[in-house]
Amino acid sequence: MPRFFVKEENISDDQILIVGNDAGHIGRSLRMKIGDEITLCCNNTDYCCKISSISDTAVVADILSKNKTQSEPGISLVLFQAVPKSDKLDFVVQKASELGAVMVVPVLTRRCVSRPDKKVFEKKRQRLQKIAEEAAKQSGRGIIPEVGEIIDIKEYYELIEGFDLNLFCYEGGGRRFCDIETLKIAKNISLFVGSEGGFDENEAEEASKRGAILVTLGKRILRCETAPICAISIIMNITGNI
Amino acid sequence: MPRFFVKEENISDDQILIVGNDAGHIGRSLRMKIGDEITLCCNNTDYCCKISSISDTAVVADILSKNKTQSEPGISLVLFQAVPKSDKLDFVVQKASELGAVMVVPVLTRRCVSRPDKKVFEKKRQRLQKIAEEAAKQSGRGIIPEVGEIIDIKEYYELIEGFDLNLFCYEGGGRRFCDIETLKIAKNISLFVGSEGGFDENEAEEASKRGAILVTLGKRILRCETAPICAISIIMNITGNI
Repeated sequence: MPRFFVKEENISDDQILIVGNDAGHIGRSLRMKIGDEITLCCNNTDYCCKISSISDTAVVADILSKNKTQSEPGISLVLFQAVPKSDKLDFVVQKASELGAVMVVPVLTRRCVSRPDKKVFEKKRQRLQKIAEEAAKQSGRGIIPEVGEIIDIKEYYELIEGFDLNLFCYEGGGRRFCDIETLKIAKNISLFVGSEGGFDENEAEEASKRGAILVTLGKRILRCETAPICAISIIMNITGNI
Repeated sequence: MPRFFVKEENISDDQILIVGNDAGHIGRSLRMKIGDEITLCCNNTDYCCKISSISDTAVVADILSKNKTQSEPGISLVLFQAVPKSDKLDFVVQKASELGAVMVVPVLTRRCVSRPDKKVFEKKRQRLQKIAEEAAKQSGRGIIPEVGEIIDIKEYYELIEGFDLNLFCYEGGGRRFCDIETLKIAKNISLFVGSEGGFDENEAEEASKRGAILVTLGKRILRCETAPICAISIIMNITGNI
């Protein structure tokens, strides 16, 4: 069944209003009609609805039932991704969204070759946010993962203490995911993956000093866009979410 | 250190000959010189070598030492991938090679939209084989994963008994990877992932009847090119190879 995210302000007790591109998409592209059923989603709640009026700019749907979205993982996983070259971040945001991350935060580290200005990045961020929304719709998520503003690695160090568990993928060696006992019980996890050149030794040392756990992704050298997908898959498996 | 795959026939007791594109690449693109060290790899053995002569068409290197490649997984994993649309197979072959698969076999299933003819596919297969080689070089593999000829799902059913363990990713439900006890000890594993439309119920039933285990990739709907990456990552983790 077609699935769209709606804003809380557009939900009343018995009806939901859909506006913007989604309204046009429902009528024109999907050719849905009055009486058709549709799933609308907001803040981890799925609303099973029946369309009651339809135009190019607005669709109104009657709420038939509502339920907690079944597909959301039981953990909150934030991916900190050192900014990679070209359009690899598009790919990372799409795949992280499918696999269940709640947020992707682009980070500037010492070895980042691509170093966009915060203001210049804002336009790209909006595009990435749309990619996250599309991936969330397609994969049946209960929320749209957020794409954060670009931060410096120094800001990451400060954020570490806000999580139960911080995993830092380091090609210089680290523990295996399986051997981290707290991973099985942590609810609020951060994962940091480097850019093409990986991390500087000092960066890994500082992260470790602040409480992050250095982890290994094995003996094969994964591309910087493969590493987060691999790590998220493993984390979701170990925490019982895949 | 630069890394290239060489053919067994080009290895003598104390020297290795590099011909073809790689020879030109070493001299022109990498600007390597006589006396430079290079890693050459064949059949899961790494040869640490020193270049002794160099031209656009041939490079000769003296063998300094040889060792078993350290990066190869301890399991043999063959990915059977139902043929997806557009160029998604390029992506799947690249990522499966990085993550440690030994072979990728494209399969025609009932729901494949893209249905290339075996002969037409042969040209594409050669291109995919090059993608596998590049990914193997970059990730430090000890072998070049093979891209198989396209087969029909009926041929897959026949191949099942050649493996210790056959995992069949089914969106209609299955066991969690973690719950499959034999996964921890299996050495020779096959993994089957569907195309955009997933698998037909009859296909899953037949695979199961033949001995394959239906597995789930969780409650989120993964794209057909994300699913194999996610599944291989989890398998490599559970078997101790990540």
